[in-house]
Amino acid sequence: MKKVISLILMGCGGVGRQLLQHIVSCRPLHAKQGIHLRVVGVSDSKSFVVAPDVSTMELADNSLLQLCRIKSDGSSLHTLAASGQVEVFTDSESTKKIIDVAALLGKSTGLALVDCSASSETIPLLTQAVDLGCCIVMANKKPLTSTMEDYDKLISHPRHIRHESTVGAGLPVISSLHRILSSGDPVCRIIGSLSGTLGYVMSEVEDGKPISEVVRSAKTLGYTEPDPRDDLSGMDVARKALILARLLGWRINLDDIKIECLYPKEMAPGVMSVEEFLGTGLLLLDKDIKERVSKASLSGNVLRYVCVIEASRCEVGIQELAKDSPLGRLRGSDNVLEIYSRCYNDQPLVIQGAGAGNDTTAAGVLADIIDIQDLFP
Amino acid sequence: MKKVISLILMGCGGVGRQLLQHIVSCRPLHAKQGIHLRVVGVSDSKSFVVAPDVSTMELADNSLLQLCRIKSDGSSLHTLAASGQVEVFTDSESTKKIIDVAALLGKSTGLALVDCSASSETIPLLTQAVDLGCCIVMANKKPLTSTMEDYDKLISHPRHIRHESTVGAGLPVISSLHRILSSGDPVCRIIGSLSGTLGYVMSEVEDGKPISEVVRSAKTLGYTEPDPRDDLSGMDVARKALILARLLGWRINLDDIKIECLYPKEMAPGVMSVEEFLGTGLLLLDKDIKERVSKASLSGNVLRYVCVIEASRCEVGIQELAKDSPLGRLRGSDNVLEIYSRCYNDQPLVIQGAGAGNDTTAAGVLADIIDIQDLFP
Repeated sequence: MKKVISLILMGCGGVGRQLLQHIVSCRPLHAKQGIHLRVVGVSDSKSFVVAPDVSTMELADNSLLQLCRIKSDGSSLHTLAASGQVEVFTDSESTKKIIDVAALLGKSTGLALVDCSASSETIPLLTQAVDLGCCIVMANKKPLTSTMEDYDKLISHPRHIRHESTVGAGLPVISSLHRILSSGDPVCRIIGSLSGTLGYVMSEVEDGKPISEVVRSAKTLGYTEPDPRDDLSGMDVARKALILARLLGWRINLDDIKIECLYPKEMAPGVMSVEEFLGTGLLLLDKDIKERVSKASLSGNVLRYVCVIEASRCEVGIQELAKDSPLGRLRGSDNVLEIYSRCYNDQPLVIQGAGAGNDTTAAGVLADIIDIQDLFP
Repeated sequence: MKKVISLILMGCGGVGRQLLQHIVSCRPLHAKQGIHLRVVGVSDSKSFVVAPDVSTMELADNSLLQLCRIKSDGSSLHTLAASGQVEVFTDSESTKKIIDVAALLGKSTGLALVDCSASSETIPLLTQAVDLGCCIVMANKKPLTSTMEDYDKLISHPRHIRHESTVGAGLPVISSLHRILSSGDPVCRIIGSLSGTLGYVMSEVEDGKPISEVVRSAKTLGYTEPDPRDDLSGMDVARKALILARLLGWRINLDDIKIECLYPKEMAPGVMSVEEFLGTGLLLLDKDIKERVSKASLSGNVLRYVCVIEASRCEVGIQELAKDSPLGRLRGSDNVLEIYSRCYNDQPLVIQGAGAGNDTTAAGVLADIIDIQDLFP
């Protein structure tokens, strides 16, 4: 008996395109497992490409791959309309059409909305889709780090939602935490390095390199966002910390988290251009970081940019940690998470590995989609 | 809407009893999640205690806890019959009754058979139950390491089976491997230290202690089986390696695995008593291990008892590993597993933590039970 999982992909940046390619290349594997992933629509921020009749038709693999090429080239999804095999809707029509499809399939054959965007704009759509009986799979951190009201809505059917790739890319962080919690093993402390970029930066400054030089080479290597301050602000790590804390049942918001920003407000994006920041701003950070590294080193410690969730404390920032701890030993861009609970008290449960990259992130999303198969008829 | 998961527990040794206690103490948590675990029967090697009418009745929490006390005291499950609240069947009647319950509930309200025994005798029961539409949750390694025929039968409905606690106790090893594989990320190498006992022994001999002394103190600390040769033979690790290899799709049996036994056949259980082995046998192992430890140390390496699965090789035994690797750094009784795949190639995905203990093992079983809830009506 074949299991058919219908889905709409929202967002076709790097992760979304990689997901479509994984779906197509996994066809033989999934067929062997009796699963068929049926992509009925794909949206980006402007348009929605959809099969003409979603009840009986899906987007063909060649359309999906063509769509990936079109987006890689920076073209509009409208280009696809020329084939005549798909319909393309734009702007508010696009949102309306997605809701129509969700209403049609949500409670009949089932539908998963897969959010691989990085936008807050999907939130109203996702919350409506939940009410229409849809499943939600997310790599997008924004919906889960919005208001508690949105959060409660999104997780109102906890089995209908998966979001492994919101923390540590494909690393089995969320699924493992779910397992621990559902077995009644209370988690009392989480500490982790959840930014590949900041992991790389902190392990390089440990070797005595000035942070200005390290950030510039990280940017050259493609490890940072186009504006490296998006990494250095700690906001991305704070969103991940919030997702973990809420998973533990904490009813907090982003502004309840103490966040250490690695640059002063005089160098904020509104005040200073990226070029200025990279050219002159960064140099002003060297002395302080160098001093902190040296001071830590005197006690046999190293600096790591971590998230800590314990007791009533949820914060992200630089911490001095023993060189000889899983976090202290971390080198390069790997992520690591230590979970302490009743079962893992003396020694934590440690999960470590690549925590970034389109391939790994998309693999995490795909594993989530396969994981909800029992909810489909 | 409440989700009711009916189950029969097979085996009420340490893990089984701990599971019953977890189930009872998690009642408020699971009620909040809309889940009710309905234990309709519990069996040990001789008897089966069952609710008088499994369609409408379950074993009450006070019966479950009384059952735990009876088994802790070493008494027979028959003692429970006195309460009049349960029925007790013995020997072949017991097996027959379990099959009756499986046939009655398997395809109606659903039933999970939870195997926390350490016996091969459950295999015929489990394979029949699979045909009757039941789910299977196992901490018992024997059924999955029997013949390929039994294995194929057991996994014939892959979504109906969970067995996290067969490898690394509650550590999220099996669930993480499933995620990686289902996302089409091919695993090319697994290396791990999967015996808390041998992990402890190898890290202690690294410090220069004779293995004879280390094994004796491990026994005193309760880290070993009553006959420590059950650990030193490597058979337990080999079973775990076989489970992992078969998960990767390898069609091999236990005797295809190269197993390094840490004592010579002249000291085997049939030839030498436990007392003799602990008294004089063990002393004869000291010289060789001491020499191997020294030799490894000259190259900056340490010895670890590991399982390796890669290319066409599946073996368990002592390996010389870099002191500065996740496995080399391992101390004490933690388990660690490194998984290499397309997504985790330069650096592996590492999962580390307590890999033994009744509490952790039972928590893994309970998480598995909760994980199959979508298969219940």
